[in-house]
Amino acid sequence: MVHHDKAAPGLNHAIVLLSCKDRKGISAAVVNFIFQNQGNIVHADQHTDDQSQTFFMRVEWSLEGFSLKREDIRPAFAAIAALFNMQWRIFFTDEKPRVAIFVSKHLHCLYDLLYRYKTGQLFCDIVLVLSNHPDARQVSEDFGIKFAESAVFHHNKEEVEAKQIELLTVENVDFIILARYHQVLTKSFVDRYPAQIINIHHSFLPAFAGSNPYLQAYQKGVKVIGATSHYVTEILDDGPIIAQDTVAISHRDSLDDLKRKGEDLEKVVLSRAVRWHLERKILSYGHKTVVFD
Amino acid sequence: MVHHDKAAPGLNHAIVLLSCKDRKGISAAVVNFIFQNQGNIVHADQHTDDQSQTFFMRVEWSLEGFSLKREDIRPAFAAIAALFNMQWRIFFTDEKPRVAIFVSKHLHCLYDLLYRYKTGQLFCDIVLVLSNHPDARQVSEDFGIKFAESAVFHHNKEEVEAKQIELLTVENVDFIILARYHQVLTKSFVDRYPAQIINIHHSFLPAFAGSNPYLQAYQKGVKVIGATSHYVTEILDDGPIIAQDTVAISHRDSLDDLKRKGEDLEKVVLSRAVRWHLERKILSYGHKTVVFD
Amino acid sequence: MVHHDKAAPGLNHAIVLLSCKDRKGISAAVVNFIFQNQGNIVHADQHTDDQSQTFFMRVEWSLEGFSLKREDIRPAFAAIAALFNMQWRIFFTDEKPRVAIFVSKHLHCLYDLLYRYKTGQLFCDIVLVLSNHPDARQVSEDFGIKFAESAVFHHNKEEVEAKQIELLTVENVDFIILARYHQVLTKSFVDRYPAQIINIHHSFLPAFAGSNPYLQAYQKGVKVIGATSHYVTEILDDGPIIAQDTVAISHRDSLDDLKRKGEDLEKVVLSRAVRWHLERKILSYGHKTVVFD
Amino acid sequence: MVHHDKAAPGLNHAIVLLSCKDRKGISAAVVNFIFQNQGNIVHADQHTDDQSQTFFMRVEWSLEGFSLKREDIRPAFAAIAALFNMQWRIFFTDEKPRVAIFVSKHLHCLYDLLYRYKTGQLFCDIVLVLSNHPDARQVSEDFGIKFAESAVFHHNKEEVEAKQIELLTVENVDFIILARYHQVLTKSFVDRYPAQIINIHHSFLPAFAGSNPYLQAYQKGVKVIGATSHYVTEILDDGPIIAQDTVAISHRDSLDDLKRKGEDLEKVVLSRAVRWHLERKILSYGHKTVVFD
Repeated sequence: MVHHDKAAPGLNHAIVLLSCKDRKGISAAVVNFIFQNQGNIVHADQHTDDQSQTFFMRVEWSLEGFSLKREDIRPAFAAIAALFNMQWRIFFTDEKPRVAIFVSKHLHCLYDLLYRYKTGQLFCDIVLVLSNHPDARQVSEDFGIKFAESAVFHHNKEEVEAKQIELLTVENVDFIILARYHQVLTKSFVDRYPAQIINIHHSFLPAFAGSNPYLQAYQKGVKVIGATSHYVTEILDDGPIIAQDTVAISHRDSLDDLKRKGEDLEKVVLSRAVRWHLERKILSYGHKTVVFD
Repeated sequence: MVHHDKAAPGLNHAIVLLSCKDRKGISAAVVNFIFQNQGNIVHADQHTDDQSQTFFMRVEWSLEGFSLKREDIRPAFAAIAALFNMQWRIFFTDEKPRVAIFVSKHLHCLYDLLYRYKTGQLFCDIVLVLSNHPDARQVSEDFGIKFAESAVFHHNKEEVEAKQIELLTVENVDFIILARYHQVLTKSFVDRYPAQIINIHHSFLPAFAGSNPYLQAYQKGVKVIGATSHYVTEILDDGPIIAQDTVAISHRDSLDDLKRKGEDLEKVVLSRAVRWHLERKILSYGHKTVVFD
Repeated sequence: MVHHDKAAPGLNHAIVLLSCKDRKGISAAVVNFIFQNQGNIVHADQHTDDQSQTFFMRVEWSLEGFSLKREDIRPAFAAIAALFNMQWRIFFTDEKPRVAIFVSKHLHCLYDLLYRYKTGQLFCDIVLVLSNHPDARQVSEDFGIKFAESAVFHHNKEEVEAKQIELLTVENVDFIILARYHQVLTKSFVDRYPAQIINIHHSFLPAFAGSNPYLQAYQKGVKVIGATSHYVTEILDDGPIIAQDTVAISHRDSLDDLKRKGEDLEKVVLSRAVRWHLERKILSYGHKTVVFD
Repeated sequence: MVHHDKAAPGLNHAIVLLSCKDRKGISAAVVNFIFQNQGNIVHADQHTDDQSQTFFMRVEWSLEGFSLKREDIRPAFAAIAALFNMQWRIFFTDEKPRVAIFVSKHLHCLYDLLYRYKTGQLFCDIVLVLSNHPDARQVSEDFGIKFAESAVFHHNKEEVEAKQIELLTVENVDFIILARYHQVLTKSFVDRYPAQIINIHHSFLPAFAGSNPYLQAYQKGVKVIGATSHYVTEILDDGPIIAQDTVAISHRDSLDDLKRKGEDLEKVVLSRAVRWHLERKILSYGHKTVVFD
């Protein structure tokens, strides 16, 4: 029984993420499903939301010596899931998510993600960088990632999104990172990728949603600024929060200082959320998330 | 020239806090006023707000050997102040502020302030604890502080405030701390004490103003909670922010955990603001503060 | 299946803390023991230390409807434990630990613990305050806790400890908090209370062990200070670390400022460790701890 | 009187950094020197170290309309400095420091510095990247910076340093950043660049000096890790500390997690120190620094 803290290339593990109405025997049923099929649990975590009486669980187990063939695992688990009326998904850790990054003109998060990707911190294939500006072309190509630019104007948003969806579909993308992409996505775009789009917003939401959060913070005179990564929903800057962090500021900090300090936060907070998503550690429900870090 | 970082009992120092439209020669004028009268500057700090072009300064100097008598200092400084159209105040560090604490049923901040007071961390005289509930009587009396209770109802707020003002006036109170006092003060009360009332709000404002901020934060699913101390203005939870701090939370934290973690923040953030106020380190302007910490 | 985040008075739960060499089937065995006896798991957490291949688990379950009588639970579990060669303990959440606090002249942690105790944050019975100075008598008695003073000199340490052990034994104390007790306990004293004594040290250990850590930090010119709570072993300031936290400082902070800022950390860090211990969330092994918070 | 928070290209400012035995009239003398020559002070800060009775000051003033020619400023100031026996340096903000970065195989800090440099956050000319490994060649050249590699072995350290000094001299380098350079510099090298070499060490010094600090931290079981930037002296990991920061960890963090979290800290802490140095905000004395941030 070898334990590994994260989904890494080459590991032959399965992960189940599930939630259901809380009642007796859920964890015993899941643990026994794995144990009786000769699986080794390498990580298990559970949580119950007291207010909604919802039960959440993440179990990761090794498939070495597992008595079910890979294609039979989901059908077999479905029987247990039905008993408890679970919402559930099973992932295999050797199947890499395919990722696109959307960005506008602030490239710090893009650089940061690409450096982490290149040095093996993010288990995925980043296959595409999309932008409404040309600025990110050079760095994308330096890192060997395909870049596509489409200027977005008031009249052509749907046309641009149609083109983007085509690119995403061709590349088989199943996870999108908005790394300071300053365009609001349409509801129809967002609906195609439920809990598959992560945004970084440069404030501690719910404060300072919308545009120019650093200016808003500066004018309000707060003594702390923050950054928030969240799943994108159709309402701007409102989806389930995954990660947040803050840093102290003072009257000595100019608006430029806020931006500079904030950008350091953004990189950390966005990459944290991205890694958790890639490692299948996040369950979102309603407006909230459970993160089994 | 002996330097001391804070106003402590027995020190014979003067402090000037000033602000004015920024222009040439302000700091030279102030520094020379002190130097030419044989004063020793023990602390000096300045700041300019780039947006409003406002200059702020705090200078603390020793009165040992100062050539002006204490009663002549303000009139003499007024001449310089007039040249630059300054807003200014001069304080003497051996004149202790007289303080009242308002509290309701959550006593953690009250305990914390009284313990700091007793152990010499707060240079003031706490002379009164006022409450709309009886809960704080015992601890106030244990620490030897006069306690007065007035239940507040919808119909008697003005009557209670009149009584409170009478108590404050008799005791010559010039600084009020709202240490979780769950009543909104009337505009007329607030107007009597401009920049002399500090409140602690249990969220990182401007998020979660109003009642039950921990519940609001819990329901929103934020990953960070905060506390904010600010001067009280007539608009609820909106005055100039003095100090803020935050702490990380996760889905594992219940609403009770939020309250417990938040209370630790509240104590630190409120006492920080109170100490800065007592040490004459805060200048407030518009919605913002400069804190020469 | 009702979930509660912490051991609270009146709950009828059992908690098992266990560790053993990692191998297949441990969690399944534990989960099934509870499930097959009609217990409801309300919290479960596990961890494996990759370096030592040690498995750790904490499971809390409700005894409502549990088919084993309370006195039969430990014998029944012993059979499972033997299979995996576990080190284990089972606790019942309605059995309150009996606690003594040792303190010298700095009373901030004592006040803080007593206030938390009084307001129901600490599930225990604090029955005794012991000191080598008289300073803590008043506050102990204000909170209704028995106080005993024994001045410690070079020649009488063993005699004093003998007297302290007698008091602890009479009061049936099973958990000791050193809340800034400035005496080194003898090995023989410490050996009586393995992993039952928690100390607060006012630095981020391993830096600045020993006396005057704030002065050491000030002289070294660090830009961050810290506090550390740990189990006491026979080596000074060296036992397994439970909690740590830090706060930024600058050249503007005098030695007194370091002490003041540090004391706020000490209170938070010590009370965090104490609460985790009381809620049976800590497993210590070698020089380290696992904290299932 | 226009205020700017930092030394930016094109500004025509002078900055004096000074220290001397504390006595009466120092700040008045400096302020008057500037004022009487028609200079505008745009930033002023002072500090006194109570223990050593040393006075520190940083004043930045605009040279627009200043009555002294640039080449006459230092000689004129020298007269004042002599009166107070000051140690002092005057800088002009349009004179960019010339910088070399030393790095080994961990490139996260190098990437980070080059990205900040490229986006205008660091006012300097980075002219050289030196390494004992080839790994940094690609990124250096992508950013258009000259790269030179010299493998260091036990027998050739002096020879390599001689070659490095030649390169530094040719390029007129006056500031060196050790961005995870895993070679100890000789005393003779260090002596050439007093307070001109900044290192990043991946622990909260003084804890875990020397090699493998993350492994040391992991084995000790600390609950917080840190990073420290400091001026390099002849004693390893011991020079005056400029900046430090920490991040919480738990038993759930593997050694790889410590490295990953630590690298994020290293980038922030190193770039903070570098920026302060470039903006002439640091005075070091003995083992400590004053940072007028």
